[in-house]
Amino acid sequence: MADVPPDLEPVLRRLDADFDDAVARWSEFLRIPSVSTDPSYNDKTREAGQWLVDQLTQLGFRAELRDTTGHPMVVAHHDGPGAEVAAPRLLYYGHYDVQPPDPLDLWDSGPFEPTIVDGPRGRRMVARGAVDDKGQLMTFLEAFRAWQAVHGTLPVKVTAFFEGEEESGSPSLVPFLKQNAAELAADIAVVSDTGSWDVNTPAITTQLRGLLYTELTVQGPSHDLHSGLYGGAAPNPANALARVIGALHDADGRVTVPGFYDDVVDPDPETLEQWNRLEQDESAVLAGIGVDAPGGEAARSLLEKTWSRPTCDVNGLLAGYTGPGAKTVIPAEASAKISFRLVPGQDPDKIVAGLKRFVADTLPAGCRFDLHVHNGSPAIKVPTDSPFLEAARAALADAYGRPAVQIGCGGSIPVVGEFKSILGIDTLLLGFGLDDDRMHSPNEKFELACFDNGMKAHAALLHRVGAMAAARRTAE
Amino acid sequence: MADVPPDLEPVLRRLDADFDDAVARWSEFLRIPSVSTDPSYNDKTREAGQWLVDQLTQLGFRAELRDTTGHPMVVAHHDGPGAEVAAPRLLYYGHYDVQPPDPLDLWDSGPFEPTIVDGPRGRRMVARGAVDDKGQLMTFLEAFRAWQAVHGTLPVKVTAFFEGEEESGSPSLVPFLKQNAAELAADIAVVSDTGSWDVNTPAITTQLRGLLYTELTVQGPSHDLHSGLYGGAAPNPANALARVIGALHDADGRVTVPGFYDDVVDPDPETLEQWNRLEQDESAVLAGIGVDAPGGEAARSLLEKTWSRPTCDVNGLLAGYTGPGAKTVIPAEASAKISFRLVPGQDPDKIVAGLKRFVADTLPAGCRFDLHVHNGSPAIKVPTDSPFLEAARAALADAYGRPAVQIGCGGSIPVVGEFKSILGIDTLLLGFGLDDDRMHSPNEKFELACFDNGMKAHAALLHRVGAMAAARRTAE
Repeated sequence: MADVPPDLEPVLRRLDADFDDAVARWSEFLRIPSVSTDPSYNDKTREAGQWLVDQLTQLGFRAELRDTTGHPMVVAHHDGPGAEVAAPRLLYYGHYDVQPPDPLDLWDSGPFEPTIVDGPRGRRMVARGAVDDKGQLMTFLEAFRAWQAVHGTLPVKVTAFFEGEEESGSPSLVPFLKQNAAELAADIAVVSDTGSWDVNTPAITTQLRGLLYTELTVQGPSHDLHSGLYGGAAPNPANALARVIGALHDADGRVTVPGFYDDVVDPDPETLEQWNRLEQDESAVLAGIGVDAPGGEAARSLLEKTWSRPTCDVNGLLAGYTGPGAKTVIPAEASAKISFRLVPGQDPDKIVAGLKRFVADTLPAGCRFDLHVHNGSPAIKVPTDSPFLEAARAALADAYGRPAVQIGCGGSIPVVGEFKSILGIDTLLLGFGLDDDRMHSPNEKFELACFDNGMKAHAALLHRVGAMAAARRTAE
Repeated sequence: MADVPPDLEPVLRRLDADFDDAVARWSEFLRIPSVSTDPSYNDKTREAGQWLVDQLTQLGFRAELRDTTGHPMVVAHHDGPGAEVAAPRLLYYGHYDVQPPDPLDLWDSGPFEPTIVDGPRGRRMVARGAVDDKGQLMTFLEAFRAWQAVHGTLPVKVTAFFEGEEESGSPSLVPFLKQNAAELAADIAVVSDTGSWDVNTPAITTQLRGLLYTELTVQGPSHDLHSGLYGGAAPNPANALARVIGALHDADGRVTVPGFYDDVVDPDPETLEQWNRLEQDESAVLAGIGVDAPGGEAARSLLEKTWSRPTCDVNGLLAGYTGPGAKTVIPAEASAKISFRLVPGQDPDKIVAGLKRFVADTLPAGCRFDLHVHNGSPAIKVPTDSPFLEAARAALADAYGRPAVQIGCGGSIPVVGEFKSILGIDTLLLGFGLDDDRMHSPNEKFELACFDNGMKAHAALLHRVGAMAAARRTAE
């Protein structure tokens, strides 16, 4: 790292020297089973929030746990160079809750007993939340700490805003943002919940898919029937549901909902070309998830399929008898959780309307249906020409010693949309996860090398934005 | 009933006089929760078997409870006119176990608290097992009792053979029949597990559908995936399973498994004509199950659909997340219980082979599958030209005062096939249930009028077969 700026260099050295202690703090955080969807973990979820308040207080923040009707929010402020100094305020967002650990029997070590094991890329941390989002959140917490240790302050103003409901649909997020918009005002948001390109190549995510999550229930007979006495005469809602779902894709893997692709905005040719230059090893990706052929649309790269193409996936199916052995029942109803990943241009409401028409047209006679929308949020495009994005590019180059690539992300981070619509700010998406991190799955992990890169990138971002502001103050 | 034979007439009068006590005994039997699929009811299931042994012993049978590896068998013998007298032996089969009562909250009274309520056809008994099979079994037990009370004996030789595993797949039945074939030797079997045409019209069932019950499991990724990060790239086994099931029927409701209809033997024209003469009120049947249109093949009557046409019904579906709310998962696997009702001519093994080919050809790339066969039994056709069927027709006319119709049954009674293949005997299927008896469902019931008809029909059958044997002895 020959060109590291002089203010930053001792901060990066400090991160190296403090590495084992940082891992120890991260482990302490991971040991708190903050499973937000399960009320029996409510105390632990709160404990994780309080742990963050304590950490931030140690780092010179004015930090508080704020109650909501669900899990509390962590809100903390630091004035960096001083309240009176003209410097941008960065809003760091993260979440301290984690997915449920089930199925427990597929874990090699306890999900809440953080364990460091050796892997092909060196050591890795295995635990629920290792990457999503406790590990990523710790990368900027440790960057704050190193700045504080070396310079006694931060070079920019910072607000930390952490929720405990991300894995359970963030019911309190929008009301809290609306009620506290003035307090949370900032120039840009920073979110680390995405991935780098690979362990050595930094990435900025500039495109996120949206999500429409629905539940389709098909009703047939008024009560469960004996399939011998009624089979062939009674409409079967489980068969009917399967028929509808089976028709949701054509032979080329395209979604058949009317109007589904009408408003899709394709990435510009330069972006597509940059993605192609990444030369993703598709067979390695498929091998990593244990399949010999991809799903989705024919004749599209895997990067296009996950970053810029919309999808339709069944997330759950339930009907009739599901225990061991045989029960000869025609079920009274059958249901499916069906979600759609949306890309820029698509309007969730329009897709819902098309889906309703599609189900009505496809459902066999004798069945009725109900379509419930759990949530819908459009895709996000981050502007690529802002000075903050410029600073982020430079910071990633400082930390990794090589330029960042601009990528898309197949997942949805609804908070990015809420920050835009409620607080009026864009978001820098700097993430350090890898595709094989097993987020939401047993043996979730985060490479220690990625953790190290993340801490250093955040330290560099603070520097780059601070330097940009200082240069502006000098010019004025 | 002007033409009732003199030997039978006092037996029928005795049944009338004893009716309330018969209902009381039946209620006692219904109060024993003999749920064979649930091990926590094992003691109660055995108690129901012992209750039958006690009843049969009182009626002059040599009765025993015989242990198996599962629930015990009841075996009881009565030599009727005497071991040395040439008279046919009738093997009465029934089962003393019942379906689980779930869902409990849909019952209007306790499933094991037999309750008599008024309905449009008079009084009815509501309880789990009211009709299937405790109520039907009691009809011949009470016929034995009335003969015994009036004549001090039975006019024919009788073996009673009751199992306690019918609702859990009868695992001990075939081994027991094979080990005790000599002891169970008889001239004809009698089974009351079917229906009459209506409350006033007796029926003999001469055609039963077979059953092939399979479980199809589709595997995709090696572990559950985040549908944001992998959606569009990963094959989704839940979508794939739905696609296969959706393709199992064509637009006319015909099953698309290769060769499915190749060997189907259609009923002869006279039989079809007789069925058409029954003038079933199809809209009433559909209203009874709460639907406004039938399922199954286009342009077939409901009677054909359920008696002589093969089917494919999904009995259960399970994949991914099925709890409340939303979870964005691409499941690693998805499974369905898929059963086929078979008609005369169809070979279960051949259907399995066709189904395997069909799934392999239909399954989208990237998914694998496993097809497990829970059980398979071909359809049954009972010869309609035997003297026993002649006696049954006469007996039903004695009891109801009008001729019996010959019908089919959509359900499977595997024991009928086992009696034929292991004991070498045909079965008389005289049943007294109605279509709306809610077998296997909450509020299962049996009309008291049907119970009365059943007792009298069995009393008359004993007489008719006895008279046939006596006439033969006289002729010799």
